[in-house]
Amino acid sequence: VDNSHIGTGNRQVRVAKRAIGVPSPDVFSVVDAALPSCPPDGVLVRVMFAAVDPAMRGWLSSETNYLTVATGAVMRAEGIGEVVESRHSDWHRGDWVYGSFGWQRFCAAGVSDLRWRIDPSIAPPAVWLGALGLNGLTAWIGLNHFGRPRSGEVIVVSTAAGAVGSVVAGLARAAGLRTVGITRGAAKITRCIETLKYDAAIDYGDARSLGAAVAAACPDGVDIFYDNTAGAIADAVFPVLKRGARVVQCGTVAVQNWLDAPAGPRRERDILVKRLSWHGFVVIDHENLYPEARADLQRAWLAGKLDAQTEILDGLDAAPGSIRHLYEGHNTGRLCIRP
Amino acid sequence: VDNSHIGTGNRQVRVAKRAIGVPSPDVFSVVDAALPSCPPDGVLVRVMFAAVDPAMRGWLSSETNYLTVATGAVMRAEGIGEVVESRHSDWHRGDWVYGSFGWQRFCAAGVSDLRWRIDPSIAPPAVWLGALGLNGLTAWIGLNHFGRPRSGEVIVVSTAAGAVGSVVAGLARAAGLRTVGITRGAAKITRCIETLKYDAAIDYGDARSLGAAVAAACPDGVDIFYDNTAGAIADAVFPVLKRGARVVQCGTVAVQNWLDAPAGPRRERDILVKRLSWHGFVVIDHENLYPEARADLQRAWLAGKLDAQTEILDGLDAAPGSIRHLYEGHNTGRLCIRP
Repeated sequence: VDNSHIGTGNRQVRVAKRAIGVPSPDVFSVVDAALPSCPPDGVLVRVMFAAVDPAMRGWLSSETNYLTVATGAVMRAEGIGEVVESRHSDWHRGDWVYGSFGWQRFCAAGVSDLRWRIDPSIAPPAVWLGALGLNGLTAWIGLNHFGRPRSGEVIVVSTAAGAVGSVVAGLARAAGLRTVGITRGAAKITRCIETLKYDAAIDYGDARSLGAAVAAACPDGVDIFYDNTAGAIADAVFPVLKRGARVVQCGTVAVQNWLDAPAGPRRERDILVKRLSWHGFVVIDHENLYPEARADLQRAWLAGKLDAQTEILDGLDAAPGSIRHLYEGHNTGRLCIRP
Repeated sequence: VDNSHIGTGNRQVRVAKRAIGVPSPDVFSVVDAALPSCPPDGVLVRVMFAAVDPAMRGWLSSETNYLTVATGAVMRAEGIGEVVESRHSDWHRGDWVYGSFGWQRFCAAGVSDLRWRIDPSIAPPAVWLGALGLNGLTAWIGLNHFGRPRSGEVIVVSTAAGAVGSVVAGLARAAGLRTVGITRGAAKITRCIETLKYDAAIDYGDARSLGAAVAAACPDGVDIFYDNTAGAIADAVFPVLKRGARVVQCGTVAVQNWLDAPAGPRRERDILVKRLSWHGFVVIDHENLYPEARADLQRAWLAGKLDAQTEILDGLDAAPGSIRHLYEGHNTGRLCIRP
């Protein structure tokens, strides 16, 4: 038995307090804990990549949310790792696994923390954390289950170059939709057009003309609005939604603090007159759709229809500042940490 | 041939100009026109009852709407009438018919203006204009197609005592839901509890405590919000919506003018975190559901599960002020005009 991992210790990032708005680095503490032992009926995982996700803001807030990480706990995060020890017959030393391992070097994982094995010959590990992981499932389920796309329709995607938005773009394009992305900054506009192949991309930094820019990019209106932002970007898209349009609420990153109950234009009249459907969803409610979605995502990946740029931060000391990095829009692709 | 109707003339209410907000009487002109002749392939209808509906505000506005009545035209309205002359083989003199006849004494109706024959032995004519007409279909389709009720759930209905809300209450109660109505004034509260059998009724006139009153009436939260109002009433209901709740946007009567783009609390976070579904609908899009809905409504009526109180205004001179009467909440039941 190779126990070479023992003795390296287990660096962890723990939640030190609740966050207000976007979590700042002082919400976390970095600690050096003892290496955990392999749990009975579980596995010990060496974490190779750990995710940084916009949803983490909600997990750390004291506001109502679908999921909370308690103060004192290791920060929850999706990850890719290698099984270094197993006490469960379904999992073996050397397996590459995708699961919820947290911001730490080693995770004593129960079976419920493990999602599925990954095959590094199909895609690099970090892609399994993004386009072929929950990001991809989020894109697929939001687009197909709630957006119900039809070839020839027009979709607008906010955070168009992000981990989810980039997969939505690839899937929508493959389904025959005209795709319009909203993002910020010249580098991301270039990425949207040249790499992600959006038909049009709009820089929301040019806020005075955002409504006019969306209208100009969508002269025949919009059938699906895949919204990761809320706020001013949504305000620019709602006026050009077509009759029968579907709004998919996947995130709300443009509004950094919901405790103050931000105001905005009332939507009821648009919803009624245009017969809109507006759905909020959280991917983990839809495990029944995972098999179909995963198969379709792998097909799309192998066919070259998905881009999966990643930005990797080295070391757990980079983790406390990583959520702010994400919300400031500085990341270039799916953000993750190599612990 | 009995031509006794000839010579009475045809009093009509026409649209004189566009309305801003709730149409005031000066939006209309009352004129005495010549009796129309029966159109080829159509019928001449003597209008017995003509509807007054909240949706008329939208038809008369210069804002975007799903339907507009042009300036100069006879005001559009659903009605119940008797065929006095027919030049179409499917329709006969003496038939009682439901259709779009306008605010006038006689209507030269094409076949497309006629919805269906009514049977006055099942229910009085004015009920065929309400609970067994488009109001009832609106209630049924909004509740069943978009609300997807399950026995034991909780529904909140705004304009609870109105022409649509009262039918929603009856259908929801019959489906095993707990029903909570929001209305205004002691008389309507009494009607909600004693006649319409709501489990609880809230007077929104007591606005300082509306949110608390809704929360107190729905201690376990709300599964379906059948909303005819938007505005402050919706703001009081959204915080108590449960995970997976459905919001059915059937009307927006609480906001009297949408040209000024009223602001309100942003809903995106609730929509996401609570996985809400929010649907706007207009009944006339769903003709495919009419047969099932009509059969179910007639069964419910015959089983005594629907109340159908009407308030009848006598004479077309009452028509120009009738929409304001409705929006001020003075009506007691389904409002219609006997021309």
